[in-house]
Amino acid sequence: MKKENCDILFRSEEKYYEQLPEIVKKVSRQCDEKACFDHVNTSIIPSRDSIIEILDLLKDLLFPGYFGNQELSEHNLDFHIGEEINNLYRKISNQITRSIRHECSRHEQTCKQCIETGCVEAVEFLKKIPEIRKKLALDVKAALDGDPAAKDSDEVIFSYPGLIAIMIYRIAHEFYVKDIPLIPRIMSEYAHSMTGIDIHPGARIGNSFFIDHGTGIVVGETTDIGDNVRIYQGVTLGALSLKKDPKTGKFKDFEKRHPTIEDNVIIYANAIILGGKTVIGKNSVVGGNVWLTESITPNNTVMVKSPELIVKKRG
Amino acid sequence: MKKENCDILFRSEEKYYEQLPEIVKKVSRQCDEKACFDHVNTSIIPSRDSIIEILDLLKDLLFPGYFGNQELSEHNLDFHIGEEINNLYRKISNQITRSIRHECSRHEQTCKQCIETGCVEAVEFLKKIPEIRKKLALDVKAALDGDPAAKDSDEVIFSYPGLIAIMIYRIAHEFYVKDIPLIPRIMSEYAHSMTGIDIHPGARIGNSFFIDHGTGIVVGETTDIGDNVRIYQGVTLGALSLKKDPKTGKFKDFEKRHPTIEDNVIIYANAIILGGKTVIGKNSVVGGNVWLTESITPNNTVMVKSPELIVKKRG
Amino acid sequence: MKKENCDILFRSEEKYYEQLPEIVKKVSRQCDEKACFDHVNTSIIPSRDSIIEILDLLKDLLFPGYFGNQELSEHNLDFHIGEEINNLYRKISNQITRSIRHECSRHEQTCKQCIETGCVEAVEFLKKIPEIRKKLALDVKAALDGDPAAKDSDEVIFSYPGLIAIMIYRIAHEFYVKDIPLIPRIMSEYAHSMTGIDIHPGARIGNSFFIDHGTGIVVGETTDIGDNVRIYQGVTLGALSLKKDPKTGKFKDFEKRHPTIEDNVIIYANAIILGGKTVIGKNSVVGGNVWLTESITPNNTVMVKSPELIVKKRG
Repeated sequence: MKKENCDILFRSEEKYYEQLPEIVKKVSRQCDEKACFDHVNTSIIPSRDSIIEILDLLKDLLFPGYFGNQELSEHNLDFHIGEEINNLYRKISNQITRSIRHECSRHEQTCKQCIETGCVEAVEFLKKIPEIRKKLALDVKAALDGDPAAKDSDEVIFSYPGLIAIMIYRIAHEFYVKDIPLIPRIMSEYAHSMTGIDIHPGARIGNSFFIDHGTGIVVGETTDIGDNVRIYQGVTLGALSLKKDPKTGKFKDFEKRHPTIEDNVIIYANAIILGGKTVIGKNSVVGGNVWLTESITPNNTVMVKSPELIVKKRG
Repeated sequence: MKKENCDILFRSEEKYYEQLPEIVKKVSRQCDEKACFDHVNTSIIPSRDSIIEILDLLKDLLFPGYFGNQELSEHNLDFHIGEEINNLYRKISNQITRSIRHECSRHEQTCKQCIETGCVEAVEFLKKIPEIRKKLALDVKAALDGDPAAKDSDEVIFSYPGLIAIMIYRIAHEFYVKDIPLIPRIMSEYAHSMTGIDIHPGARIGNSFFIDHGTGIVVGETTDIGDNVRIYQGVTLGALSLKKDPKTGKFKDFEKRHPTIEDNVIIYANAIILGGKTVIGKNSVVGGNVWLTESITPNNTVMVKSPELIVKKRG
Repeated sequence: MKKENCDILFRSEEKYYEQLPEIVKKVSRQCDEKACFDHVNTSIIPSRDSIIEILDLLKDLLFPGYFGNQELSEHNLDFHIGEEINNLYRKISNQITRSIRHECSRHEQTCKQCIETGCVEAVEFLKKIPEIRKKLALDVKAALDGDPAAKDSDEVIFSYPGLIAIMIYRIAHEFYVKDIPLIPRIMSEYAHSMTGIDIHPGARIGNSFFIDHGTGIVVGETTDIGDNVRIYQGVTLGALSLKKDPKTGKFKDFEKRHPTIEDNVIIYANAIILGGKTVIGKNSVVGGNVWLTESITPNNTVMVKSPELIVKKRG
């Protein structure tokens, strides 16, 4: 910072720098008191940045040649994929180990197999890649099929936020079903921040899922979604408010809090469907702005009786 | 990854590494089968990262001195703008060439003029910069005029997501009207991911457009918006659901699927206006939460008759 | 760009490069005319990139050990925090100086104490860090308490977008109350772009605030929020439309445009509450989709009488 002649009264910054050590001491002492949250003197924890790196590498592996810098041909394809798989194996096993070790130390357990479990689960995950690729191919086709504005599959892959959200969901879900802590949720909230689409990694979602526009969508942890389902911006598949057990102070009735959406259902913008016992039967259509806490049998269309409009001349 | 004594049972990672080549082979073989999506052995494709770089450079060119690292004065202004225009010319012509070549190879056509077209269209686009700057100046003024919280024009330019979304729309629209594939949509979805505002590059939007807050806004491909229009968060200007032609399996009635908004209209939060024949006449105001699939004549205010509220004592 | 044999007709790019100087001249001349917006020949202005860097450093300081690359122990903690505080002091004082100088030059005032004020305010802000940390600890606990899907506090800190939005709000608010121009709004719009949550830095928000999901939330400049308040995605705490004074052309009735939310209130998804005189009394619950422009006394539940649904068999 230059001292310019407009600030001629300003002689020295010293008296400001002098005040810093006291602030440092206070912030540091707070870490002793454990009133605030910190990770000092604890086990190695997962790194959000590394998990985002893993997602970027996976994006390139799931759609080879679309996002990387390198052009791929039959001559370099195996080397390229080989390098990426090796790289991913190291990063993923490391982050799984960290997340398990963090969980052990949180429960004050000794961590006997954190490294080994990291390796095992990383390989298990990588074996799922071909299956995830097939599912994503169906999701791309569902977008092409459902959106008149979609020009071709490459436009979907390059630019549709719904596809990014579904891709990251399909990755995160694999870690969720293996009970790996922290990683799935960090992944899904990264997708949320990029797309405005909030899919909990615990949700179960069938094939050929299409999200159009997508901003504001919320899909809760225990949601079940069948095949060929299409949802629009602002749709919430959420929970009714839960009671806490007065004895334990914990939430009860925990099992299934979010709705079930059967095959071939379409849900238009801003519809809100709540509750673990709510089932939208197959082939049904839920109109925009509908608010549902009860089930709909198959093959129905549900719409809001539009609220009366008041039109009056201005001026 | 250090082996720590909590993992004494863990001897070697070898048996995990041994499983990787088989995974590589499977992923690689999938690319032969063409069941999934990849870009192997195809022409050079556009790069999403480069297109984002282009948008960053353009942001600095459209508002000189606001976003770059360099301070601008009359002495360095020409050099600075000259360097940026040259840089942009090279990047834009390259990406246009790639997107056209990609389109040619998709239709199995020989690409005779991809490079030349890239150069022509890049120069044509750059010639539009002064005009885009004038339009953006009007948009900034519309924000200042419409938002009581806006302190000055610099606050709008530095921080309003609506202005970013409009800027990228005005850029992307120029490529859209020239039928350049992929690039406009990659641009608009980048804006969508940064702002939550989803404006299709095909929409036609007049001067002095103001978006307040903006998250959740959707403006469809064939929307027409006049001058001095203001819209709030969550507004959808969308399509009614389209029927597919039973013979071709394609969407029909393709031409105009989204509404027309005439001059001086204000649309408040979460209003949803649908359909290609829906026209909101000039000087009209559409209230929050209104759901419209029919036209409104000029100079009207449309509001929802508020749904009855149920208020009850708790406990 | 390689010339490939598909483009044999293309000889030279020269005729395109030749057109660039004319474009440069036009853009440059626009900066003289002052019809568009630029920062040429003006004082140094704040840098959005530096302000984002400041937020990243603060994130690490507010939750030590969670986000940085370094592992923290009692042995390096003081050095780490010391370095960060020094670094932050320099960056923050610099940006404050720039924002004040920019404001002075905008009002054509001579800037007598811009550097000194930058130093004073930077130290004042840093002294607030321990207090902000305590408030954020309460916010984390409120999330754990309010969300059945929250597994533990680290999941909240690593991944909840609501916590990021609240953290940046609590930082930006400190600059806002000191009347520092531009910086608070640049911060809050950065949070908005990352999370879809738009909290104006002028809002006053009590302790133990919890935002679930969050996309689409708008909290206006003069909103007052008490302790233990919980809000869901799509909630707007906004202003009724303001009239302009016909004499001055400025907005009048400027003081309090946004609602007051008292302690222990819950506001469910997409509720819209408008107006500076609207008060939601303590312990009340506002249901999803409710549209309110009038006050609610304490201890009430307000719900929309659900609009009638029309269900009909398809096909």
